[in-house]
Amino acid sequence: MQRDSFKQHISGQFNAELEAVKNHLLEMGGRVESQVALAVEALLARDSGQAADVIAGDEEVNIMQVKIDEECSHILARRQPAASDLRLVIAVAKVTTDLERIGDEATKIARQAITLSEQAQSRSGSAEVRQIGRHVGLMLRSALDSFARQDEITAVDVVVDDDTVDSEYASAMRSLVTFMMEDPHNIGPVLNEMWALRALERVGDHASNVAEQVIYLARGLDVRHMEPTELRAHIQGNRNPEDRDTE
Amino acid sequence: MQRDSFKQHISGQFNAELEAVKNHLLEMGGRVESQVALAVEALLARDSGQAADVIAGDEEVNIMQVKIDEECSHILARRQPAASDLRLVIAVAKVTTDLERIGDEATKIARQAITLSEQAQSRSGSAEVRQIGRHVGLMLRSALDSFARQDEITAVDVVVDDDTVDSEYASAMRSLVTFMMEDPHNIGPVLNEMWALRALERVGDHASNVAEQVIYLARGLDVRHMEPTELRAHIQGNRNPEDRDTE
Repeated sequence: MQRDSFKQHISGQFNAELEAVKNHLLEMGGRVESQVALAVEALLARDSGQAADVIAGDEEVNIMQVKIDEECSHILARRQPAASDLRLVIAVAKVTTDLERIGDEATKIARQAITLSEQAQSRSGSAEVRQIGRHVGLMLRSALDSFARQDEITAVDVVVDDDTVDSEYASAMRSLVTFMMEDPHNIGPVLNEMWALRALERVGDHASNVAEQVIYLARGLDVRHMEPTELRAHIQGNRNPEDRDTE
Repeated sequence: MQRDSFKQHISGQFNAELEAVKNHLLEMGGRVESQVALAVEALLARDSGQAADVIAGDEEVNIMQVKIDEECSHILARRQPAASDLRLVIAVAKVTTDLERIGDEATKIARQAITLSEQAQSRSGSAEVRQIGRHVGLMLRSALDSFARQDEITAVDVVVDDDTVDSEYASAMRSLVTFMMEDPHNIGPVLNEMWALRALERVGDHASNVAEQVIYLARGLDVRHMEPTELRAHIQGNRNPEDRDTE
């Protein structure tokens, strides 16, 4: 009897550790979400002070990543998780990498904001930055929500949505090239906006990676290199057929 | 006695699995190294055929990643590795992500090669692409060598070298902006070269990430967010002081 209660105690602690690492990941997600939003705002407002805050804030994101990765290593070493618990730890360790890189992209946007704040105002692609910034912000939010709720339907939407961001990005680039052609004085500032857009497009890619981990988590299926349409058909058509270790 | 020989047998199999996953990772590394080299060659020669081969070849890189990640999951689930074995598996799982993204960057360079092959020749930044391409190629080679030999001194060199690539990249960008300013007809093709350079700079970042995992592997120390100079002083000044689980 004592042994059973000991086991339950251990298993309760283990569950608490899994819950904690998941919550820390979501906190990190919330943090990078806000970093991206603040960086885009700083860019649009040419606000170098706010941009500097974003750059300084990246340190905290990095610290969060290192801590969460350590938690994952400890759980793997001491708890030897199996089945869906193991998948959760692996998914968390993969997602920290994406979130940290989203933090880096926010920093890159903030750097462009500072450069732009120092330049004379010229014709610019602010509309494009605003639109794509809002779009990838929503994608990131949905990706994190889908992780929190292990909601694979929302996760699939995020992966599919990344294609839309890619075409918005391509079309924004074409407009910006036109601004450059019109007047060589635009070249410098427009390039800064192009780098910022590139960073936003990368945020979309990372959000999509996060969503792919949600699908891995939910059904033990690695969908990272599946085409979005194939993926949607696969997820909607099958109720968990490839899950190798359901509890 | 029988039990001991059984244990030895298991441990022999386990070592073989670890050796196998490490070799598969190095094979994947060799593959992406060649993808990057071929993409740069295709860009310089404006060779759309070779560029198309690179794009088609990315599929194999993706398959390699999925397989290696599966091997890692199996080892974690069935072998419950500890100490340096656990670090190896975690490092391999992190490195596959970087190698796969290097493959993606090679694809991006190849896409720019195709676009450039369709344009009339204009003044271009081929010298910059050649130089930075060679430099990040060497970095990637060194990062993979340092992984194969668990050589943390070489790994530190790679991390430090990434700063040099970053300044070469910044200076190349300034030259390319000048080409654009000189003649608006250059804007299109120069932008394509800028995207290719950006991709090469990212390859350097990923090579540096691989090297950071070698340091983690060698001494259980997470150096991802350390400044290069701090890192070098740390590694050269200490013989493994933070290694928490040496065998």
